Amino acid sequence: MKTAHLLTAAAALCFAAPLAADHHATSLEAVADEALESDDLAWDFVEGITTEVGPRQAGTEAEARGREWAIAWLNAQGFANVADEPYEMETWVPGTIHKAEITSPFAQPLVIQPLGGSASTGPDGITAEVVMFASVAELAAAPEGSLDGKIAYISHSMTRTQDGSQYGFAGPARWIGAQMAKDKGAIATVIKSVGTDYHRNPHTGGTTFRTADGGADIGRAVPTPAGALSLPDAANLERMFERADGRPIMMKLTLTPENLGTTISGNVVGEIVGRNRDLPPVLVACHLDSWWNGTGAFDDGAGCGIVAAAALNVAKSGQPLRTIRVLFAGAEEVGLYGSIAYSKAHIDEPIGVGLESDFGADRIWKFESNFRESNADLHARIAGSVARFGVSNGRAVASGGADINISRDQGGAIIDLQQDGTRYFDLHHTPDDTLDKIDVVQLRQNVAVWTQVVGILANEGTSIQTGGPVPGAPATMGE
Amino acid sequence: MKTAHLLTAAAALCFAAPLAADHHATSLEAVADEALESDDLAWDFVEGITTEVGPRQAGTEAEARGREWAIAWLNAQGFANVADEPYEMETWVPGTIHKAEITSPFAQPLVIQPLGGSASTGPDGITAEVVMFASVAELAAAPEGSLDGKIAYISHSMTRTQDGSQYGFAGPARWIGAQMAKDKGAIATVIKSVGTDYHRNPHTGGTTFRTADGGADIGRAVPTPAGALSLPDAANLERMFERADGRPIMMKLTLTPENLGTTISGNVVGEIVGRNRDLPPVLVACHLDSWWNGTGAFDDGAGCGIVAAAALNVAKSGQPLRTIRVLFAGAEEVGLYGSIAYSKAHIDEPIGVGLESDFGADRIWKFESNFRESNADLHARIAGSVARFGVSNGRAVASGGADINISRDQGGAIIDLQQDGTRYFDLHHTPDDTLDKIDVVQLRQNVAVWTQVVGILANEGTSIQTGGPVPGAPATMGE
Repeated sequence: MKTAHLLTAAAALCFAAPLAADHHATSLEAVADEALESDDLAWDFVEGITTEVGPRQAGTEAEARGREWAIAWLNAQGFANVADEPYEMETWVPGTIHKAEITSPFAQPLVIQPLGGSASTGPDGITAEVVMFASVAELAAAPEGSLDGKIAYISHSMTRTQDGSQYGFAGPARWIGAQMAKDKGAIATVIKSVGTDYHRNPHTGGTTFRTADGGADIGRAVPTPAGALSLPDAANLERMFERADGRPIMMKLTLTPENLGTTISGNVVGEIVGRNRDLPPVLVACHLDSWWNGTGAFDDGAGCGIVAAAALNVAKSGQPLRTIRVLFAGAEEVGLYGSIAYSKAHIDEPIGVGLESDFGADRIWKFESNFRESNADLHARIAGSVARFGVSNGRAVASGGADINISRDQGGAIIDLQQDGTRYFDLHHTPDDTLDKIDVVQLRQNVAVWTQVVGILANEGTSIQTGGPVPGAPATMGE
Repeated sequence: MKTAHLLTAAAALCFAAPLAADHHATSLEAVADEALESDDLAWDFVEGITTEVGPRQAGTEAEARGREWAIAWLNAQGFANVADEPYEMETWVPGTIHKAEITSPFAQPLVIQPLGGSASTGPDGITAEVVMFASVAELAAAPEGSLDGKIAYISHSMTRTQDGSQYGFAGPARWIGAQMAKDKGAIATVIKSVGTDYHRNPHTGGTTFRTADGGADIGRAVPTPAGALSLPDAANLERMFERADGRPIMMKLTLTPENLGTTISGNVVGEIVGRNRDLPPVLVACHLDSWWNGTGAFDDGAGCGIVAAAALNVAKSGQPLRTIRVLFAGAEEVGLYGSIAYSKAHIDEPIGVGLESDFGADRIWKFESNFRESNADLHARIAGSVARFGVSNGRAVASGGADINISRDQGGAIIDLQQDGTRYFDLHHTPDDTLDKIDVVQLRQNVAVWTQVVGILANEGTSIQTGGPVPGAPATMGE
């Protein structure tokens, strides 16, 4: 992408960030401790973007306003090389009619929202018998053609987990259920929300359909209508099956999403410029888009606030050795378009280490890296540095998240700062993802931990992955 | 109403209820204790009506289906003299479009639902500047004409309370705010939901407008559009005012309620027939209608389940001396139509004592009567009998609730069994009023307490209000 080169050129003109002027005025530890008590930067970001922009559905003008807002904020905070890096994408929007109505034998409306990628039923809706499956496995076992002309309903059982692992357990109902039901003849699919709260706010999220030739090109996929019921509505529907004595449960489903075709989305980047541009930067990432139904506070306005606040805090302790680059990725929710575009555009520019914050704003409880063995000293130093914030040294190998495809694509160093996910799936992809859900005390702990970790990484003169010399950079830079 | 006479005639034919056959088989105390451990009657009622009927907006066919369902349930449980007592009412329905959109300076949608009695904006909506008031008192102080052409926004601060008293504190924003704003020129009113939860499910409820000549006739009132924002949306709007630097906040409001004119609603009654029809019955009441947006579980399906279960339980300990009459009132939410119609139709038939359950299904913590002084012995006996369920003897004078107008109109005995309201206003009048919110353990405690209290009352041979002879009945009936 052209803008990448412009960015590099602009960066060269702006070596020292204004904020880094009072070199080493305060120790990194003191800055991190201070963030724990009084950080307002992350809060200011997430309060601002949720209030002044709100929902930021990928590919829409609302997401574009989110980028404009973020760019203005980054500039106001003194970030260098702030830029919008646009890319094209296929854009789906939810439309305005989202209705599910049981018409027989127990007529009543149920609360539904479409899944990302759903087809439209048209404004007049479709009416069909609902066939219930207790799990994706049960649906998978249904004979071909057994759902001809029917609406599939897919249930599941999902428990709150601190590490979020039940998302992987229950998620397939959403991720692949609709295509699977379509393969067996279903004309539409309704799922129990992949979430853990009992409020009547369905959890949306993408569902994947294949193209006519079996491919995965989202722009050419052939979807059916697909939606998620809130958990209270799913429970109600399941009770109807119990009480129906075999009578068919008939549903009128009306969902009117639209495909807008190709539109422009974009990534927003900014930098705290380091003292040595030859050293690969520390990439701290999040995503700026949200689903239409919430305001993108927990997912992921808070994450952008956390990584940006950490970068600014590190600069308060002196200009770092390495550049810290923030990446506010676009269009994560609908298929990681921004993260993929960023990797494609910058694949030849080595990243020293990648970290993302994209799991809410509750307390960080575990640190993991993918260089625990290859650079045991650095891993141990980081683990030791965040122990005072209650962060333990996890044993798994960090694999990063959706927003740092580039680190995986480059085979580079990755760190995961695991947030407490206990209540994440109460809010994720729902209308309830709003500012009031953010606990300021826990948000500040995130910023403190990030400040500490990013500060160590950004002042590391040797390879983060190996502890040895950085390829292509002068051997020792010192401080 | 004609049906009242039919009911009395039918009752005479059915002196002994079938359920009361095994006279004194089990003590009242044992039956109440058993309910605490294993009551399923109340649950069966509320599960059934929320699943098989769902929302029951007053005056609509859904409310009528609710009555049919309840009549079938009462008959199946063995109640005598089950009847629908119809009355006419002016019926308001919410319509299908409920939107509030900030158009400038911070464009984003807010979640809104109309207040009961709201006018329609028409499907194209209205756009106007929003003027914020922190309280009804602040609105009251605004000069006449100061809201010409504007949308009034009324905030308030409401805290969770066990006794529900903050409903009286915050409620006026909803009850009278829209008329007050209209009087000052406002073309519409938006309020912060009168509720205590931070989910994006607005709290609806009735708002009162005067008629053109200043009267209170609901059918001729002249409303403006009026809606409630969820608390997260209200907070967002208030942050917009803080961030707008004086720029006007413009809102496009689209609400399309309709008045259906006169329709038929009704009360459902049923009886456990007592041994002595000369003694005034014990009236146990609740309401069957709900707002359209929830399924009427907490408000008030549970209440109907509790009072009916208690009546049935009392019969298990032997046919009671007095008749226990259940009243499932219609159209409570929109103006107590059912309770008023019941009182009007039956005002000449003395009620021995009236009790209602209409505050959710959480634990009963306090007993109050209005005969603490006039019949101290009975008051003390009841208080003593429920102490084992954790119910204290309150000092206030019971005044009853919306569903027992007749007891107030007759100046009769009233008992309040106060439920814990701490989370009531998280759910009240919201889409979140669904079955899953009912805690079975607490529901059973309600049934146990009600069984104990109603059992004592239904076997009281002397006047409940005075302890003396019952006017018009043989002096002592004994058991």
